[in-house]
Amino acid sequence: MTPPVTTTALVDAIAFDAAGLVPVIAQQHDTGEVLMVAWMNRDAVAETLATGRVCYWSRSRQALWRKGESSGQVQQLVELRLDCDGDTMLALVDQTGDACHTGRRSCFYRAARDGSWHVIAEVETPPDQLYGER
Amino acid sequence: MTPPVTTTALVDAIAFDAAGLVPVIAQQHDTGEVLMVAWMNRDAVAETLATGRVCYWSRSRQALWRKGESSGQVQQLVELRLDCDGDTMLALVDQTGDACHTGRRSCFYRAARDGSWHVIAEVETPPDQLYGER
Repeated sequence: MTPPVTTTALVDAIAFDAAGLVPVIAQQHDTGEVLMVAWMNRDAVAETLATGRVCYWSRSRQALWRKGESSGQVQQLVELRLDCDGDTMLALVDQTGDACHTGRRSCFYRAARDGSWHVIAEVETPPDQLYGER
Repeated sequence: MTPPVTTTALVDAIAFDAAGLVPVIAQQHDTGEVLMVAWMNRDAVAETLATGRVCYWSRSRQALWRKGESSGQVQQLVELRLDCDGDTMLALVDQTGDACHTGRRSCFYRAARDGSWHVIAEVETPPDQLYGER
C-alpha cells in the first residue's frame, strides 16, 4: 500500500537507522506513564499515522506488529512526536490493558533499590492470555 | 574506579548491546515529561548510581558524558528502572533547566499534525549557552 502524501512527508523526515528502523517510546497520554519501547520501520510509521492504531516492526518476527492484534492490548495513537535528531520517536497513546508481554501495565517494572532490581508492579493479565502476540 | 559491589550486581543484570551500550529514557520524575533518550555503558550506569548525577556515554565523543557538566543542565537521579528484556532503561530524573541541546526542555518538541512536523515547544535557553556540552 502506498501511504497518502501527507504521511509520506512525515515519514521522510525521520532518520531511520541502517536497518531502516527507529525506536519508539510509548507513553500513556494522560498519566505520563512510560509503557514500553519498540521499533518502527517506514511502513509501521505510515500505518500508525493512517489508522491511528499503533503498529510496530517486530525484529524477532521480521514482520509488522499490530500491537494488541492477538492480545487485545491495543494502543490508540493520540500524538506522534519526533526528537531533535529525528532518530527517536515518542508515541502518546491510549493503552488498552497492559503494554508488557509479562502482563504488567509497563515494561519498566524493575527499580534499582538497595543494590538490587526490585519488581515494583504486579502482573495484571496472566501472560498466557497474551501469548502469541509476538 | 571499581564500582562498589551493590552497583556491580545491578549493572550485571543489564543486557548491553554488542557495542556495550543500553538506551536510557530520561523522564522528569514529577511531571512525567519525557525529556530525552541517550546511551549508557557499564561505567556510566555505575557512576550514575554511585553519584546520583546522571552520566551517559557519548557515542560521538566516545567518552563519558556527565549531563550538564559544561551547560549546568544537570539531571539528578530519582530512580533508575529496567525493562522486561533488560535492554532498555528508564531514568526518573530531576532536570535542571533544559534537557535538549537546542535549548528546549524536551528533545521531543516536534508533533505530527496535519501532515507535517510542528514545533510545539519554545527555546528556553539560547543554544550558544549550551554549546560545548557534547
